[in-house]
Amino acid sequence: MKKLLLLYLVLIVTFMAYLYTAYFRESDDGLNAVTGLHGEREEKYVMVNFLTGIDYWKNALKGFEDAAEALGVSVEYRGSTQYDVHEEAMVLEQVIARKPAGIAVSAINSEALNAAIDKAVEAGIPVVMFDSDAPNSKALSFLGTDNYSAGAAAARLMAELAGTEGKVGIITHPNQLNHQERTKGFDETLRGEYPGLELVSIADGKGDQLESEKQALTMMRLHPDLSGIFVTEANGGVGAGNAVLKEGKLGQVRIISFDTNKGTLDMVKSGTIAATLAQGTWNMGYWSLMQLFHAHHERSAGTPDSQDSGAFPLPAYVDTGISVVTRANVDRFYAK
Amino acid sequence: MKKLLLLYLVLIVTFMAYLYTAYFRESDDGLNAVTGLHGEREEKYVMVNFLTGIDYWKNALKGFEDAAEALGVSVEYRGSTQYDVHEEAMVLEQVIARKPAGIAVSAINSEALNAAIDKAVEAGIPVVMFDSDAPNSKALSFLGTDNYSAGAAAARLMAELAGTEGKVGIITHPNQLNHQERTKGFDETLRGEYPGLELVSIADGKGDQLESEKQALTMMRLHPDLSGIFVTEANGGVGAGNAVLKEGKLGQVRIISFDTNKGTLDMVKSGTIAATLAQGTWNMGYWSLMQLFHAHHERSAGTPDSQDSGAFPLPAYVDTGISVVTRANVDRFYAK
Repeated sequence: MKKLLLLYLVLIVTFMAYLYTAYFRESDDGLNAVTGLHGEREEKYVMVNFLTGIDYWKNALKGFEDAAEALGVSVEYRGSTQYDVHEEAMVLEQVIARKPAGIAVSAINSEALNAAIDKAVEAGIPVVMFDSDAPNSKALSFLGTDNYSAGAAAARLMAELAGTEGKVGIITHPNQLNHQERTKGFDETLRGEYPGLELVSIADGKGDQLESEKQALTMMRLHPDLSGIFVTEANGGVGAGNAVLKEGKLGQVRIISFDTNKGTLDMVKSGTIAATLAQGTWNMGYWSLMQLFHAHHERSAGTPDSQDSGAFPLPAYVDTGISVVTRANVDRFYAK
Repeated sequence: MKKLLLLYLVLIVTFMAYLYTAYFRESDDGLNAVTGLHGEREEKYVMVNFLTGIDYWKNALKGFEDAAEALGVSVEYRGSTQYDVHEEAMVLEQVIARKPAGIAVSAINSEALNAAIDKAVEAGIPVVMFDSDAPNSKALSFLGTDNYSAGAAAARLMAELAGTEGKVGIITHPNQLNHQERTKGFDETLRGEYPGLELVSIADGKGDQLESEKQALTMMRLHPDLSGIFVTEANGGVGAGNAVLKEGKLGQVRIISFDTNKGTLDMVKSGTIAATLAQGTWNMGYWSLMQLFHAHHERSAGTPDSQDSGAFPLPAYVDTGISVVTRANVDRFYAK
């Protein structure tokens, strides 16, 4: 009889547990009614780029992983370890062969990967570009910095740091389109919004630290009253910082640099570089995965079918934005 | 004894049901492990615009609703029924007072709503702009058509439809920035990519059907060998269509128009207008809600905290893209 009672007790507790579970599933934060936007663990999205080991990509991969975590899908990180067009193309071909749910690619050059990208898209594997576009490929969209806007932001920041009257210069990489756009955005914004801030010199720093240092020294000697230099890439920013230190012009010549490698951040921390512009690399990774997920699920229940609902192809372009890094917030930007 | 057996049976079945439920929760599409990206039903996102009743907004609202459905949150649609700046500003103030989770605004003009938008953002209510921006407000981002790119797409389409040699014209609304950008994108793309396709005339159709018809007639008489007209807005497209019919030039002068109101779609269906460009209004609504959701949840578990993880502010701009509408796919674009 005691045994029977015990058995009863066990079964009754089980029954209550069942009732509780059933009730819980109906009424907690909506697991039953609302499963939210999510995929399957087996759904694998791959990020492919070049120079895979550099710090610059860490936040992009983090964004890609954060989105995958939120959506319950898997990611993989591949690419060429070297700055090697053929290696990146080969890695991309290998990735395509395994038919992943989607691929986010940063192109080492704007044409070399077109054939591979087009093959993937034609085989029904969604491909989006991030950071460096392949505009003539069939990739579904591009997520990256609007360089003209970034240059315009640098101009407004310069006016804030150096005042709205005076002389400023640019050190850039004039043969690359992204640097031309940063220069144009800076120049046109000064002309349009700060006519008192005169752009007296645009120098070619060749993307090299020592050459940029030389150009900055020349610029400061030709224009002793120079109050700021916008450097459109990171090596040149450090070079210009060294030039300002050598000339003893710290506090007179404000440097605005680009990107957030360690050398640049150290100079922001010490005050040699007044500010640098951080690209939205986390956004590039996060929203790339978000777009790929939507493309992959286009015909499933979670997202509307373009045939039926008027859903559109993916947004063609996402400006992932820039953030201003100064001494006040620099610690957040060191790669982890 | 029979009763006892029955009771046992019931309890055993219950126990098995419990085991099954527990197992199911662990192993089905991951409801337990993965709840996906989702909010709460009480989380309300509001779309605010002007001329709320027009067809143009239907797809934007559909996108907004589709995203809310996917994320398990609620939406509301508000705005001014008239083309009335004060009415839209008043409605926006009312919406802000009820502290929604986020607001997507299409601004009737680029300045009038700034105070209200800034107030909302300062109070911690995320605001994004869609379709019509308020660039000097504190809104977190803008989602809309890149009009320069749309004009460039129209130029490439013209070369496809009218061939790469010949004369073409534009009928536009030269005082509005979005129309200037469409014109510039068309013009520069022809010069850069199709030097054999000459832009012989840019006329002011004043956004009016009859005026545009008049301008199209004049253009065809001045240039009897004209092979195409790009009209940058919908009323003018119908006007140009009527002009082509009157002149008996159907098949010789290809018209490319803009947007997808009924008059335009009917002319695409009949072949009078060769193609029209549909804006990505569904994308505007869908990705606006997606961004607002992320801004609202910034400090919750689902999305990374910008302080900790390197997560970025929202993307600054999303080009929601355009789609080419021809006789082949026109039926999909009628408002439902």
